[in-house]
Amino acid sequence: MSDDDPVASPDVSPPPDPSPAPDVSPPPIPDFDADAADAARDRQAELTKPPGSLGRLEDLAVALAGLTGDPRPTLADPAVVVAAADHGVVDRGVSAYPQRVTRAMLRNFATGGAAVSAIAEVVGADTLVVDAGVAGPPVEIDGAGDGTADEATDGTAGVGAIEVVDERIGSGTDDIATGPAMSRSEAVAALSAGVRTARTRLADAGIVALGEMGIGNTTIAAALTAALTGADPDRVTGPGTGVDEETRAHKVAVVERALAANGLDGGSGSDGDEAADAVEVLRRVGGYEVGLLAGVALGCAADRTPVVVDGAVSGAAALVADAVAGDVRPYLLPSHSGAEPGHAVQLDALDLEPLFDHDLRLGEGSGAALALSTYRAACRSHDRMATFAEAGIER
Amino acid sequence: MSDDDPVASPDVSPPPDPSPAPDVSPPPIPDFDADAADAARDRQAELTKPPGSLGRLEDLAVALAGLTGDPRPTLADPAVVVAAADHGVVDRGVSAYPQRVTRAMLRNFATGGAAVSAIAEVVGADTLVVDAGVAGPPVEIDGAGDGTADEATDGTAGVGAIEVVDERIGSGTDDIATGPAMSRSEAVAALSAGVRTARTRLADAGIVALGEMGIGNTTIAAALTAALTGADPDRVTGPGTGVDEETRAHKVAVVERALAANGLDGGSGSDGDEAADAVEVLRRVGGYEVGLLAGVALGCAADRTPVVVDGAVSGAAALVADAVAGDVRPYLLPSHSGAEPGHAVQLDALDLEPLFDHDLRLGEGSGAALALSTYRAACRSHDRMATFAEAGIER
Repeated sequence: MSDDDPVASPDVSPPPDPSPAPDVSPPPIPDFDADAADAARDRQAELTKPPGSLGRLEDLAVALAGLTGDPRPTLADPAVVVAAADHGVVDRGVSAYPQRVTRAMLRNFATGGAAVSAIAEVVGADTLVVDAGVAGPPVEIDGAGDGTADEATDGTAGVGAIEVVDERIGSGTDDIATGPAMSRSEAVAALSAGVRTARTRLADAGIVALGEMGIGNTTIAAALTAALTGADPDRVTGPGTGVDEETRAHKVAVVERALAANGLDGGSGSDGDEAADAVEVLRRVGGYEVGLLAGVALGCAADRTPVVVDGAVSGAAALVADAVAGDVRPYLLPSHSGAEPGHAVQLDALDLEPLFDHDLRLGEGSGAALALSTYRAACRSHDRMATFAEAGIER
Repeated sequence: MSDDDPVASPDVSPPPDPSPAPDVSPPPIPDFDADAADAARDRQAELTKPPGSLGRLEDLAVALAGLTGDPRPTLADPAVVVAAADHGVVDRGVSAYPQRVTRAMLRNFATGGAAVSAIAEVVGADTLVVDAGVAGPPVEIDGAGDGTADEATDGTAGVGAIEVVDERIGSGTDDIATGPAMSRSEAVAALSAGVRTARTRLADAGIVALGEMGIGNTTIAAALTAALTGADPDRVTGPGTGVDEETRAHKVAVVERALAANGLDGGSGSDGDEAADAVEVLRRVGGYEVGLLAGVALGCAADRTPVVVDGAVSGAAALVADAVAGDVRPYLLPSHSGAEPGHAVQLDALDLEPLFDHDLRLGEGSGAALALSTYRAACRSHDRMATFAEAGIER
């Protein structure tokens, strides 16, 4: 059987039983602070505007107070994290772009030439670019021998600074159509790298947008979404970067084959066997950048830092994080309603109501970065507006 | 008959025929620059992203290129203009707040304590506060004897500067339930003041958000919207700052009475008599701040500066501008879908597709200011992204 015939029965062995390998131990995640939320709600009632007239911005401010534990959250130093990695499944012809574009785009992020770079600048966010496992040797960024761009090394980086870091788990994953993407220890390492990144390099960020880059990773996102939500592969597999309908149908077949090859074709991932183990799902049909972003979400939540979910790949990472530790759920915030069909399934599963729909399908964190302005506007108005008493206005 | 019984036949004379009064002569508005838009579209195809993957942001960048005549528009120095005025119709009990709140809020804008002040700061916009006719004497702002806040007087004002200016047309309008709101020369003066404000104080702004404040002005907006679109008063009259359903029903009756008292109850305003004259509609059921904002839209469009429409009052100003000079239409950009029901009617009439719906009903330009980040993100990514050639990425 040829690899070009992915709808035939997989010619692979079932995945080996997970060895008694290292397991992930997510950090404890604090509960929503109801007292801070109540204090924020009380403050909203005192601000110089008719009650409720800021609509959803008021709800966001109250929710962010509960998440951060601060009745007047400032969301200072917002950041966008863009994790990049490669995927063996690209050999199946699932993308309109060759694998080497991942590496080229990593350089583009590092030099501020990508869409998310421009959007981060508009919203006043720094960008942390993470090589989580681009195929080939570590990416050398000009002028940053340690993989760190100059702007961010002296501690004086201003708004819009770009930092590039090496958290490589491997040199691209294996092809999920024939077996697991990675080893169990790699899956754990990806999550751990994300947690560590959140708690060190992103420790000062008041809110973090989750972005990614990786040719082939909408196929990975579709497989993860099908495995973790039980949704049909056809429903969660989209055109990604822009393949035609014929290629999309092929992509669906690849996702189906990947699920079968990895023992994840039993419908819902919560059927009681090891498929219910989110780390195991990540190991089998995940990606390094997805695992790392899931870890970032867990690490940020542990530090009471809300994270903003972007499109379908970022959404798959949010599903993984949620499956690893359900306590992360309140810290996962929506941004846009993406064009990739699996995104709606993810948002539904995570109970996230998007803030806007601009028909985005780029990823990179572009939509999440744009949404930072909404979260910041909600908190800034909550924090800076005069009260009726301060303004000398009777109600 | 008591003023408390607004549904009875109006006890007023029909409005006097307009005297041979000054008329408005809007400045010529340039056509959409198709060459600039084409060049922007070509550039979009060269940028390092899959074609179309930035969705609506790409369309916005192309549209803004055509409007500004610049293939790479920057929308530098964005501004929010907040025009404030009072309305005699508040005596009818149409608002939850007393008239003096308009004056108090003007001070609040001047000192940066309002919601729009905080949002303008987040999106990097300056704020121009205009007293277009608050009831009583001119508002004295502390530390600004000429009505101009210190930050903006030395020409070095940075992002988030606030300037307060006096463009008073009168001391509040008359009650539209018993006759015209203002004289013909006042209506013309309001429009002219707006045009002048746009072409002088806002001349450097790359994009302008249209905000307003005026207790009672959602009643004015409802009357204008009914008169200019032919919509039923009940359909376009909402809770405004938050009146209950009984008061809203009373407000509908006041709007109906105002239309009847002013000879505007014939359905569509385009029935051939002087009601078709937008200036006349403004004179009869308008407000000073609405006329001024309509003039700002006309003046900005004349200078190729797009303006962003906010909620129902800002939308009424957009309707007036569009009725005065239809060439303004392309320069009117959407922001949110507001909670006030007349807003949807306005957006439909102006063919504007909102960018988001946060259930806002504050006005002040709050939603339009927030939308500036979307327009800036569209243009910044369009301008700053590397091309495939620049990034050395094959397509």
